[in-house]
Amino acid sequence: MRPDSLAVLGLGAMGGSVAWQARRAGVSRVIGYSRSRPDAVQALRSGALDDLADSPATAVAGADLVVVATPPSAIRELLALVASAAPSRALVTDIASVKSPVMHWAREAGLDDRFAGSHPFAGTHVEGWAGATPNLFRGAVVYVVSAGASGDSAAREVMDFWRAVMEAEPVLINGDTHDTQLAWTSHLPQAVASALARAVGLEGRLRSVTWGRGICDSTRIAASPPEAWVDILLLNREAVLPAMQAFESQIAECREILTSGDRERLRAWLEQAAAIRRGVTGPGERL
Amino acid sequence: MRPDSLAVLGLGAMGGSVAWQARRAGVSRVIGYSRSRPDAVQALRSGALDDLADSPATAVAGADLVVVATPPSAIRELLALVASAAPSRALVTDIASVKSPVMHWAREAGLDDRFAGSHPFAGTHVEGWAGATPNLFRGAVVYVVSAGASGDSAAREVMDFWRAVMEAEPVLINGDTHDTQLAWTSHLPQAVASALARAVGLEGRLRSVTWGRGICDSTRIAASPPEAWVDILLLNREAVLPAMQAFESQIAECREILTSGDRERLRAWLEQAAAIRRGVTGPGERL
Repeated sequence: MRPDSLAVLGLGAMGGSVAWQARRAGVSRVIGYSRSRPDAVQALRSGALDDLADSPATAVAGADLVVVATPPSAIRELLALVASAAPSRALVTDIASVKSPVMHWAREAGLDDRFAGSHPFAGTHVEGWAGATPNLFRGAVVYVVSAGASGDSAAREVMDFWRAVMEAEPVLINGDTHDTQLAWTSHLPQAVASALARAVGLEGRLRSVTWGRGICDSTRIAASPPEAWVDILLLNREAVLPAMQAFESQIAECREILTSGDRERLRAWLEQAAAIRRGVTGPGERL
Repeated sequence: MRPDSLAVLGLGAMGGSVAWQARRAGVSRVIGYSRSRPDAVQALRSGALDDLADSPATAVAGADLVVVATPPSAIRELLALVASAAPSRALVTDIASVKSPVMHWAREAGLDDRFAGSHPFAGTHVEGWAGATPNLFRGAVVYVVSAGASGDSAAREVMDFWRAVMEAEPVLINGDTHDTQLAWTSHLPQAVASALARAVGLEGRLRSVTWGRGICDSTRIAASPPEAWVDILLLNREAVLPAMQAFESQIAECREILTSGDRERLRAWLEQAAAIRRGVTGPGERL
């Protein structure tokens, strides 16, 4: 779908980018709402919005499409509100990194046939509007989850929105499959990066030493907004905990090999890691 | 010093870059040696060398400065050889990520007053000559370790080489201080990145799923050449093991918090990690 009227709730890096790109792509009316006054004012001043609403209910009143772009903890309440305040024709989506709980909340709000969950595989560790940019989603994979048979039409429309307006690459996925996959490929790495930053940063002797490119890359996502990650890690903890345990076994194995001094085993362990990583090409990467 | 004649042993990414930049900077005679025939031939063809030697002894025969740029395991033997084959006026350095063992080998070879250890804080995960580039060291911190009072003059000359010829920023450091610092900021992150790549890559359900930018950055160094890292991790294991244990405590703490579901404690844990990471600015980074 190409909405005539789009409402975006939450104007941080993700929501701000949705609004900005929609306006650039010619959506006639883009209305935003943010709990953060600075984010809202900057989004309006930057020309990412036609107008700013003073409440979520006002924002969605005339919308064809509502994008909920808040941290996960606010989504449940907002979906209930959208169900009553938005026109009955309006479709609704979100952008959270966990999908099964959001699909559950959408059903709870009675939005089954008007909701599809989204998770754009793009982002930034820069918090708030400051991280917004119109082309954040261009070429990015966006996972879309249907609410089931009754929601398939909404899912098709939402996928079309991501493709036609955001210039992204929507991919339909099952909610549980999505959450398990992301537990390993995104939520576990977030915990690991944070643990590494803490281990090194809390070691008193290392105050103010130079961090090289390796550790900077390895810990970059530790700088991400904590608020969103509290929600994601707790909402998806049943899938995240086994991933963390598998990782802990790997690091313990490495420590055991180092303790034993077994050169051949260490080489094999590192070689398998290198082979796995070389088999993956990340966004914009040349390995 | 600006050597008239430079010998580089090992023509991988690091040694290749030293040779290439030296030649560009006008060093009259740059002689290379590599056990890898493809690396050697490519270095010669690319104009990074005046000549290729068929043995380390031939390479160093007329040198003012010898740079040993091999994996750490080859350094001990090469230093003994350089001590007998190079002119008595020749100064010697290396580029390994561990310094105390190398300083020990230099003393063992009788090179006390002609050796200073180097560790350029630059690198690439691209293996061999393919990773070489003349400006790899430009603006990079290079740690230089003196062999003690008798080696201070050599250390000054080697620092001057890095500054004047390689356009790097040499910093004098104590060998043990260096090795402890790097155990935390480089060797631990290498083990963590490898463990993370293994944990995710060995999980059967995740074959061929998309890896986002976060995990790609977090695991990038896992693709580094295993050979060099086997040496580094084993040579520095006494400093690396406590760093690994501190890291394991952090990841275990995160898992406990997730298990308990304590939202406030998780927020505080993530916030401290974010504050630490935001307090660091990596090379070429805008956080």
